[in-house]
Amino acid sequence: MAHKWVYLFEEGNKDMRDLLGGKGANLAEMARIGLPVPPGFTITTEACNAYIAAGNKFPEGLWEQVLEALKKVEERTGKKFGDPNNPLLVSVRSGAKFSMPGMMDTVLNVGLNDETVEGLIRLTNNERFGWDAYRRLIQMFGSIVMGIPDEAFDEVMEELKKEKGAKLDTDLTAEDLKELVERFKKVFKEHTGMDFPQDPYEQLRLAIEAVFKSWNSDRAIAYRNATGIPHDLGTAVNIVTMVFGNMGDDSATGVAFTRDPSTGEKVFWGEYLVNAQGEDVVAGIRTPKPIDELKKEMPQAYEQLLEIREILERHYKDMQDIEFTIERGKLWMLQTRNGKRTARAAIKIAVDMAKEGLISKEEAVMRVTPEQVDTLLHPQFDPEAKEKAKAEGRMIATGVNASPGAAVGVLAFDADTAEKWGKEEGKDVIMIRPETKPDDVHGMIASKGILTSRGGATSHAAVVARQFGIPAVVGCEDLDIDLDKREVRAGDIVLKEGDVVSIDGTTGEVFAGAIPTVYPDFEKEVDLMTLLEWADEIAARPDVRVWPEEKSMYPTRGLQVWANADYPKDAERARKFGAKGIGLARTEHMFFEEERLPIVQKMILAKTPEEREKYLEQLLPFQREDFRGLLRAMAPYPVIIRLIDPPLHEFLPSYEELLREVIEMEVKGETGPELEEKKKMLAAVEAMREANPMMGLRGVRLSIIMPEIVKMQVRAIFEAACMEKKAGYDVKPEVMIPLVSHVNELTTIQTELEKVAKQVMEEQGVEVEYKFGTMIEIPRAALTANEIAGVAQFFSFGTNDLTQMTFGFSRDDAEAKFLIDYVEKGILPKNPFQTLDVDGVGQLIDMATFRGRTSRNELEVGICGEHGGDPESIHFCHKAGLNYVSCSPFRVPIARLAAGQAAVKDLRSRGAEETYLA
Amino acid sequence: MAHKWVYLFEEGNKDMRDLLGGKGANLAEMARIGLPVPPGFTITTEACNAYIAAGNKFPEGLWEQVLEALKKVEERTGKKFGDPNNPLLVSVRSGAKFSMPGMMDTVLNVGLNDETVEGLIRLTNNERFGWDAYRRLIQMFGSIVMGIPDEAFDEVMEELKKEKGAKLDTDLTAEDLKELVERFKKVFKEHTGMDFPQDPYEQLRLAIEAVFKSWNSDRAIAYRNATGIPHDLGTAVNIVTMVFGNMGDDSATGVAFTRDPSTGEKVFWGEYLVNAQGEDVVAGIRTPKPIDELKKEMPQAYEQLLEIREILERHYKDMQDIEFTIERGKLWMLQTRNGKRTARAAIKIAVDMAKEGLISKEEAVMRVTPEQVDTLLHPQFDPEAKEKAKAEGRMIATGVNASPGAAVGVLAFDADTAEKWGKEEGKDVIMIRPETKPDDVHGMIASKGILTSRGGATSHAAVVARQFGIPAVVGCEDLDIDLDKREVRAGDIVLKEGDVVSIDGTTGEVFAGAIPTVYPDFEKEVDLMTLLEWADEIAARPDVRVWPEEKSMYPTRGLQVWANADYPKDAERARKFGAKGIGLARTEHMFFEEERLPIVQKMILAKTPEEREKYLEQLLPFQREDFRGLLRAMAPYPVIIRLIDPPLHEFLPSYEELLREVIEMEVKGETGPELEEKKKMLAAVEAMREANPMMGLRGVRLSIIMPEIVKMQVRAIFEAACMEKKAGYDVKPEVMIPLVSHVNELTTIQTELEKVAKQVMEEQGVEVEYKFGTMIEIPRAALTANEIAGVAQFFSFGTNDLTQMTFGFSRDDAEAKFLIDYVEKGILPKNPFQTLDVDGVGQLIDMATFRGRTSRNELEVGICGEHGGDPESIHFCHKAGLNYVSCSPFRVPIARLAAGQAAVKDLRSRGAEETYLA
Repeated sequence: MAHKWVYLFEEGNKDMRDLLGGKGANLAEMARIGLPVPPGFTITTEACNAYIAAGNKFPEGLWEQVLEALKKVEERTGKKFGDPNNPLLVSVRSGAKFSMPGMMDTVLNVGLNDETVEGLIRLTNNERFGWDAYRRLIQMFGSIVMGIPDEAFDEVMEELKKEKGAKLDTDLTAEDLKELVERFKKVFKEHTGMDFPQDPYEQLRLAIEAVFKSWNSDRAIAYRNATGIPHDLGTAVNIVTMVFGNMGDDSATGVAFTRDPSTGEKVFWGEYLVNAQGEDVVAGIRTPKPIDELKKEMPQAYEQLLEIREILERHYKDMQDIEFTIERGKLWMLQTRNGKRTARAAIKIAVDMAKEGLISKEEAVMRVTPEQVDTLLHPQFDPEAKEKAKAEGRMIATGVNASPGAAVGVLAFDADTAEKWGKEEGKDVIMIRPETKPDDVHGMIASKGILTSRGGATSHAAVVARQFGIPAVVGCEDLDIDLDKREVRAGDIVLKEGDVVSIDGTTGEVFAGAIPTVYPDFEKEVDLMTLLEWADEIAARPDVRVWPEEKSMYPTRGLQVWANADYPKDAERARKFGAKGIGLARTEHMFFEEERLPIVQKMILAKTPEEREKYLEQLLPFQREDFRGLLRAMAPYPVIIRLIDPPLHEFLPSYEELLREVIEMEVKGETGPELEEKKKMLAAVEAMREANPMMGLRGVRLSIIMPEIVKMQVRAIFEAACMEKKAGYDVKPEVMIPLVSHVNELTTIQTELEKVAKQVMEEQGVEVEYKFGTMIEIPRAALTANEIAGVAQFFSFGTNDLTQMTFGFSRDDAEAKFLIDYVEKGILPKNPFQTLDVDGVGQLIDMATFRGRTSRNELEVGICGEHGGDPESIHFCHKAGLNYVSCSPFRVPIARLAAGQAAVKDLRSRGAEETYLA
Repeated sequence: MAHKWVYLFEEGNKDMRDLLGGKGANLAEMARIGLPVPPGFTITTEACNAYIAAGNKFPEGLWEQVLEALKKVEERTGKKFGDPNNPLLVSVRSGAKFSMPGMMDTVLNVGLNDETVEGLIRLTNNERFGWDAYRRLIQMFGSIVMGIPDEAFDEVMEELKKEKGAKLDTDLTAEDLKELVERFKKVFKEHTGMDFPQDPYEQLRLAIEAVFKSWNSDRAIAYRNATGIPHDLGTAVNIVTMVFGNMGDDSATGVAFTRDPSTGEKVFWGEYLVNAQGEDVVAGIRTPKPIDELKKEMPQAYEQLLEIREILERHYKDMQDIEFTIERGKLWMLQTRNGKRTARAAIKIAVDMAKEGLISKEEAVMRVTPEQVDTLLHPQFDPEAKEKAKAEGRMIATGVNASPGAAVGVLAFDADTAEKWGKEEGKDVIMIRPETKPDDVHGMIASKGILTSRGGATSHAAVVARQFGIPAVVGCEDLDIDLDKREVRAGDIVLKEGDVVSIDGTTGEVFAGAIPTVYPDFEKEVDLMTLLEWADEIAARPDVRVWPEEKSMYPTRGLQVWANADYPKDAERARKFGAKGIGLARTEHMFFEEERLPIVQKMILAKTPEEREKYLEQLLPFQREDFRGLLRAMAPYPVIIRLIDPPLHEFLPSYEELLREVIEMEVKGETGPELEEKKKMLAAVEAMREANPMMGLRGVRLSIIMPEIVKMQVRAIFEAACMEKKAGYDVKPEVMIPLVSHVNELTTIQTELEKVAKQVMEEQGVEVEYKFGTMIEIPRAALTANEIAGVAQFFSFGTNDLTQMTFGFSRDDAEAKFLIDYVEKGILPKNPFQTLDVDGVGQLIDMATFRGRTSRNELEVGICGEHGGDPESIHFCHKAGLNYVSCSPFRVPIARLAAGQAAVKDLRSRGAEETYLA
């Protein structure tokens, strides 16, 4: 028995998308549930693949099955394909699993020829309609199936209209259209060397083959490459009985959405044209009418449509995008599919449908993508204005999309100017630098956007920008920045300081001039707030996880979303966005502030511990105030404060700059105290230089060699905590020790620091709840997590460093030199600094979590690297049984959604029954 | 019943060292096998610990058991402790498990007092002997038990001698000695406030307590800290009946070794003194006679000694160090223990004893330490000459002992001078630099020794020196090198270029002037050659290993020793030392040679792949010749050639130097082509700079971005291999791709390179046996080894980089900034770059080996980091089931011994039966 290549609509259903494509499966489904679908059938995607595999030959049995199916359609319609007396006409449409530009679209009216056109005229008693249908077939078949350029037909049409003095197509008479058919046939012959096929079966066969071939058109392949759709899916072909919306004023055609795709409101939304074919709606020659008017024009059809709208939504449990035709008063459904919608609509529809009881809250959470949430949170350029700017040639460069959002402002070429303009003069500033340094931060945070010509997604500019939610485009190599002239060149365009630019941190685009933006307000997004609360509830449900080496399941306590925040205002923002704790507060950022940095430098250059402690005492009050604000903002949630992490030379001037200054002074023969001072500083910086500072004297290593700094920090933390506790806040400080590779490092320093903590609490006469714990960011720490958890009360995966060490990639260098190539060449599926490498780094996280909990059951485990805000990585964190993910405040809503989705996906993947939220 | 604290000699044996200490166990053993040991008993180490734990109180039952044992000794000897008629005298000696300076030594003649001395005189009929024995007791008891300074007794003795006009002690008469007893008693009273105890039991009790207390003397604690002996072992106390070698000319005392401890020859070796006590031999007041003369003086005792020598060697199966006393013609054995010996003697004795059938070959291999083998291979300073130089104040500095061995030569302050003097003028040169760089190598290899003032054990100087077996002392911070004046200061001493220095790379010492050295010749060390062949055989035996996650055993093929060698002459040396393959040939070293570097630089700076290939074509013949030599030298053993690994900027001038030059020229207002050229180079170098070059664009990453270089290298390798094959050599090239973190990297580049290999073999018309494989030096590679072994035919653990990434330590930075502190503070047990970190890095090696072999059963797995030459690490490699360890040629003999020992240890630890070699 031959393989089954063809399915009548009544044989399929909506779950057969793989085989029948999206369109075919939905036509079948509509037929199955009794909606008025014109009879027809679908040729499977397997047939397409077999056709291609055989070198463009129909597989055995296909044509016979097509003929057989056609016979069934003839029976159903009472018409006959190619019968001049009662001709059956069909449309041939492609329909892959995923809709895809570049594929052959639709050929209508297949089955018409010189004889059947006469039959059609007789039957419809409408000569003009008949010839119009025929000329449309020749035109569509010619251009779509045979590849004749559209212009060839358009020219002939225009010529005829000129001859006849016709302004519109509709001004042409039946006679004119009959003449047009003849002329189109000539065009067809000229271009293809053959006559327009009179055999309807020949028409059908060629149209089917054209659909098959279009699967591998250049444009289709490029689209699949770009979107990651596999190349071996193939397309289905739908053969559908023609129905005509252009048979007079009792006929119409239209498209509609079951809800408003722009706002998500539950209103019937769409438009239609009377006496028109579907292509006329799309072509926009006549302006369609809003669907409401159909109620007056064709009340019966309208009522039926409203009913079908209800049926489809109840059936598909999602907003539908439908196509319909009314032929002489009878409604036919030609397509239904889940409708595309804006981010805002997606959220409203999901929430509404859950409230309506149509879908579960879990399903509502699954209906919205993290990107859609993101869209709602960052200022966005008005898309039309952006397109216009591009058309005007105002896009001057593209770079790395380092921190999402849109920003418009005047260019400032240094941090001081940016701060002055931004803070004092209230201007919107875009700070532009070749790259940024820690002492630029005051200017950066006073800016609306950051633009650099060097550095990657982890450059200083990028990290700071993300941290503060400032849109940034970095590494714009097309920009030639001249700091002396205070101007930037991009090709021929020169922009001066004070000129306006617009940067899109979501896409990496840079524009000259202003582009209008749209700003969202989180607290007004009530549907989003609702949805995220559901996501929280779902994510927080206890679950189970499986440790590969053990093959048994153990319970977990659900995944929370925390935030990384260094300043009280970040913490407040994070809390507003729904964070349940601070997973990472970086204390060193506090050292860079203007009044503190000179003290920090003196502290670093101190010759004795005593001298160092003198300066540390000056720093203590600053740190204590920082911590008070943080702890208070988050109470009663925990705040994890990381002790100083970077190498000390980061707080000193750059070696190269000092070297340059000293040499210049020396060559010029200068002498005196300034030179001596600089030389001293140069010597100090040189002594601290490291070959690979990322793996050098920093983190816990620094604390062990020079414990005074962290002792001061712990004192500041506990003084702050005690004061807040006394002020009535239920604060929960957690002290995090970074860069541990061996348990002895932790034991050594933690013992010292706990002493300080206890001493402070005694001095202050108050007890606070606290934890000491560590980052897991070194492979060895993960491998020996059982030992480390014997000391640490919590683990926080620093997945940036952990990824660096596990891959042996220095992120700055890798992103600048080879990582983009790696992803382009498919060597790595994704940038592992953006999406967690589950196969490698993930093994270490799994191992560390399991081993850590084996030695300390209640171990709190989270992740505070940038991956904490990446949905795919969050899914992994859920599976690994982590307690929380911590990300930048602006990613918190996205992470909350992703955490909820992870819980649902995981449940579903295990085939577990979905627990419906009340 | 009370705990047993006391063992009579006849109750113990040699296996009770833990309880009875080394001396006690051996005395018991000798008694047990019927040798003439004076009756006595041992107080256990447990008693010592109980005494200390109770706050210096005898535990219950101890004193009673001592008295009981003493009674048994009285019965055995027929004498009575404290009985004036027939007094029993005893010695009290400490005896811990390990011999240990700082512990109380020996008190002789315990039991003498004003009454028993008279009895002794009556019995021996020797008044002088009696009073001499008594004064010795007061002196020893006073100084050793009561802590009276020796000088107090010495002064009194000298005073008396002056009064009596006596020159030697022996000139003093019985009467004089009686007087001395009185004066010593006064000294005793003055210093202790009490009379010398007349009660023999009081003497005994105090002496025992003194031994116990000495366990925790400052010196003993310091010694245990330094040598890693646990503090809870405690010491035993031996109470032995006194026998006297000073009872006349028929009495004597001596020490002997059963073989020559210096050469290992099988001759009876020792010395004795007639009419003397043991302490006189040690004190060196009279010159002892060689043991041979005893044959004439006391033939009967001598014969008995020879017999005992045989018995002891057969019994202990090792060379013994014995103490004996002859009392009135009767031989008494006072001690036996395994004798200390020189490295050469250790080897000869082990080999001889195995040949004599006394021990197995396995045991022979276990009898020699890797350090002893090392001693035999490096030139050594004559120890006496070195001590003399120190006494003369010629030791001017100490640094890091970076590469072992002694070197003497004239100072050269740059590489060109070193090369000129060393190569052309045939001088012995010590090259001195603040630190070295790749373009110094030509001078370094022309030198006998390397001396630097900066850098650690992994600095460029250290690594190159070890590679070439050149002694080196690095990081001598005491040295102030002035390159302009071409002189070096160390405190007040100034040495000029051309002055002679001596450096000891084994100890890190630096001397002004020449110190004579002793050079070994490997091939003349026939015993060592024999021993290492046995070690090879043992190591090569198939074994089993256990993978922790699986709990089942799988077979392994035994561990070979290969060498790391970049040049044919290194390969030849490695082969002479017994290497069975080259585990790592670094191709980039070949790029640094003088005539090649300019081509390499042009290649790197090439603007197009075509231009780059032009220069690569010029490099190809050089590389091909290098590879021909290497492959030929090792045929038919495999040679693993690693493709280019370091970042390209290492081949270009240093950024700082260029920057300095350019700034200087600019400030001076210079212009012209030279400045332009330098600026261009500066720009190129700047573009290649990386934040953390160790983790940047190098290894396979470089090959993927710029495949032309490795294609040239693979072409050179296969052209070389084909040519040598045609010349009749059975060459086995293996191509190693470094720094892989993801299997796709390997797949991408290996596919390209195998094409080149096949093309060359086709061109040359000959097939060679080859492999492609990879370094495992990135944690991710180890974690995903199953995937990687699907492509790689061999793994080679680059444990330097693997340790760096696993710990997150940049070795250069870590050793310079904190690693020494870490080891000193006990945070890390050892420097993990010298001895493999089994707990962390070892897990990855285990995992990768197991997972790799799971997907490719015949996977060849080895290690080529510096750990390959470290005995402890080699032991781990054996247990991990590796096929080979690869180390620098000079470490090969040491590694061979360590590999054999690892196999034996592992078998023994599993309780498996030892297979005796034929």
